Amino acid sequence: MHEFKYKGNDFYCESVKLKNLVKRYSTPLYIYSYNVIAGRFARLQKAFRPVSALICYSVKANSNLSILKCLVKLGAGLDIVSGGELYRAKMVKCPPGRIVYASVGKTEKEIREAIEYGIFMFNAESEQELDKINTIAKRLKKKTNVSLRINPDVEPKTHRYITTGKKETKFGIDIDSARKIFLSRRKYGNLNIIGIHIHIGSQVITAAPFVKAIKKIKSLNDRLRARGVLLRYFNIGGGLGIVYDKEKPQTAHEFAQRALPLLKEAGLKVILEPGRFILGNAGILVTKVLYVKDIPHKRFVIVDAAMNDLLRPALYGAYHKIVPLFRRAKSQELRAKSVDVVGPVCESGDFFGKERKLSVKKEDYLAVLGTGAYGFSMSSNYNSRRRCAEVLVKGNKSYLIRERETYKDLVSKEIIVDI
Amino acid sequence: MHEFKYKGNDFYCESVKLKNLVKRYSTPLYIYSYNVIAGRFARLQKAFRPVSALICYSVKANSNLSILKCLVKLGAGLDIVSGGELYRAKMVKCPPGRIVYASVGKTEKEIREAIEYGIFMFNAESEQELDKINTIAKRLKKKTNVSLRINPDVEPKTHRYITTGKKETKFGIDIDSARKIFLSRRKYGNLNIIGIHIHIGSQVITAAPFVKAIKKIKSLNDRLRARGVLLRYFNIGGGLGIVYDKEKPQTAHEFAQRALPLLKEAGLKVILEPGRFILGNAGILVTKVLYVKDIPHKRFVIVDAAMNDLLRPALYGAYHKIVPLFRRAKSQELRAKSVDVVGPVCESGDFFGKERKLSVKKEDYLAVLGTGAYGFSMSSNYNSRRRCAEVLVKGNKSYLIRERETYKDLVSKEIIVDI
Repeated sequence: MHEFKYKGNDFYCESVKLKNLVKRYSTPLYIYSYNVIAGRFARLQKAFRPVSALICYSVKANSNLSILKCLVKLGAGLDIVSGGELYRAKMVKCPPGRIVYASVGKTEKEIREAIEYGIFMFNAESEQELDKINTIAKRLKKKTNVSLRINPDVEPKTHRYITTGKKETKFGIDIDSARKIFLSRRKYGNLNIIGIHIHIGSQVITAAPFVKAIKKIKSLNDRLRARGVLLRYFNIGGGLGIVYDKEKPQTAHEFAQRALPLLKEAGLKVILEPGRFILGNAGILVTKVLYVKDIPHKRFVIVDAAMNDLLRPALYGAYHKIVPLFRRAKSQELRAKSVDVVGPVCESGDFFGKERKLSVKKEDYLAVLGTGAYGFSMSSNYNSRRRCAEVLVKGNKSYLIRERETYKDLVSKEIIVDI
Repeated sequence: MHEFKYKGNDFYCESVKLKNLVKRYSTPLYIYSYNVIAGRFARLQKAFRPVSALICYSVKANSNLSILKCLVKLGAGLDIVSGGELYRAKMVKCPPGRIVYASVGKTEKEIREAIEYGIFMFNAESEQELDKINTIAKRLKKKTNVSLRINPDVEPKTHRYITTGKKETKFGIDIDSARKIFLSRRKYGNLNIIGIHIHIGSQVITAAPFVKAIKKIKSLNDRLRARGVLLRYFNIGGGLGIVYDKEKPQTAHEFAQRALPLLKEAGLKVILEPGRFILGNAGILVTKVLYVKDIPHKRFVIVDAAMNDLLRPALYGAYHKIVPLFRRAKSQELRAKSVDVVGPVCESGDFFGKERKLSVKKEDYLAVLGTGAYGFSMSSNYNSRRRCAEVLVKGNKSYLIRERETYKDLVSKEIIVDI
């Protein structure tokens, strides 16, 4: 996060004054720091070097091609969940041997495209899916690697929408059923069922649920080994929490210290699927204050970004810090007031922050922090609002990595019929 | 809703067998009934004929150009909330005199474009906005009509996110402040401040909150009249509820019976802004069953649509009926089981319905009903999923009104930089 900071009273991303980017590209605008992305990736890589883990960045967190390209160049693989993400992986020339594919609802076309590209591994979520992948692989005369996604039934203590490793969720296969599948793995002639995949949830702050899940899997692996089933890969998923507000999440190093002894004992090659951990604090959403509106007992700061640009507050009740791009000197400071920062959309769910201490006036700019992951990637054209531009900063250079949409873009797939 | 029904065991939209549309356009697919749209519009028009109301369809509910075109041809005006929606209004040649523009966050550019097009009226939400519109109109040497959006402080008893007429929300101006603005209206030399606008919320089932709000506004109007302020328009907004499940919402006729006596007494020309009321039950989302997955005590039906296609269940906890496109004859019926219908996205919030009685198997098709409003218009590319195609049905004819996105569309605004 220290790549986003004030120098004097101006807010910077690395060595770029953000006010200059706003002048050039207008608002709302997503801005990312290359150094944060590369730094977070390097920290994970270093922490898991003792088991030479393959780190597959979770594309859905932020799927911009330039960001994928950077990560692939740094040595990352990609964790994909759809044909669209496979297309992106191809666009940035990600080596197929570094792609893992997870999703509870892979279609036939998506499976075929992935096999044809020769991806490293599917994470399969059900027996039906194993059948489907096997049938398609057979038709293509290929053999493909598969990990079983196991639902370890642990409580990750996060938002219910991003809890994915409890037994009553739609994800994965319970341990007992998985064991049976491994034992009868030979009936899938075109699959190498050689790994286990788990993903317990997102924004998980402590190591404890991971440790609990890894122990369960380790014990399964031991039992399988005793029956002659030799697995090779253990994909422990993503879900590492980050700082949005006052969280104290484990660092990559702390997580590795807890997990590595267990993983080494298991003797399996480790795969990780971080998304938010790498991108979350690498991006901000910059927005302009359109109006400051006082009503009795309340002040609203109405900005030009909206829930269509950043859905997390409305959807998850997520907290994001909000800071001004220009910090007023004490003498000129407006009386800091508790304000609600809201967007223009006609819904009460269209807000970015409530009861924040912010002294701002019309035409000021605000930065909504920690929006690098699940920010742009969840954005929409709701209210016929054009989606943002995106800029990537490295050192004193900035690169436009996505153009702002035009009005014409909004209707480009529509056909006017006159009936 | 009776335009979506079974004939024999096949589900139809008007005279078109939906299975045929699915074969032609694939899934997920939004399908709309022209007759429902026209019928709902006609019912409102008829109910409010005694006050010759201007009915401005709320574009954000469903902004497809062909649907706007149909409504404009039927005589509707348009209620817009952004420059993008103004662009759409121009594309379908909506007469400017039938456009009203509401939003708490209109930008300078948007206001300018709207004045230049000569829209009928702005709904202004704050004094700051009045200043801004006045300044821009002056610069353009134009005079423009304005209604003040008044926050009547009534409780609409709907979801908190779509409650918009309580005093602690960001919307509108309280009655007292509004009265002062009307009395000092002459200071805005380029504005005709000649109307009042309210919008208390969405999916409001009973007339009572509307009646309460209208009474408050009528009383304000009386007081203003006594002071020589003669208003001409009363825009009562939208928000009329529809049937999603077991609601018993007022009909247009019932609503008019309650509201018309009050509106007639007020002696103001009435404007309405219905969105959901016209489109909500005019559309369905058709999706294919990819997998039926049993876990202990639970069955998941995994379909090829996801939360990116229809956000309402995740965002509002909204209920939508789900029915099969092909109803099995009793003899072949699978044991009807309580199932959760979920999408492929890796979030527990990605669901369409929970604990539904549905007997389905792989490759069946399901229709998610009541998704004509706030369905496609809130959709996104989350998980790099391509947005749906949309089809409009009239009688025995169907028209593609939006093409399905391609992989290429997903990345069309992105720029790969190699740093």
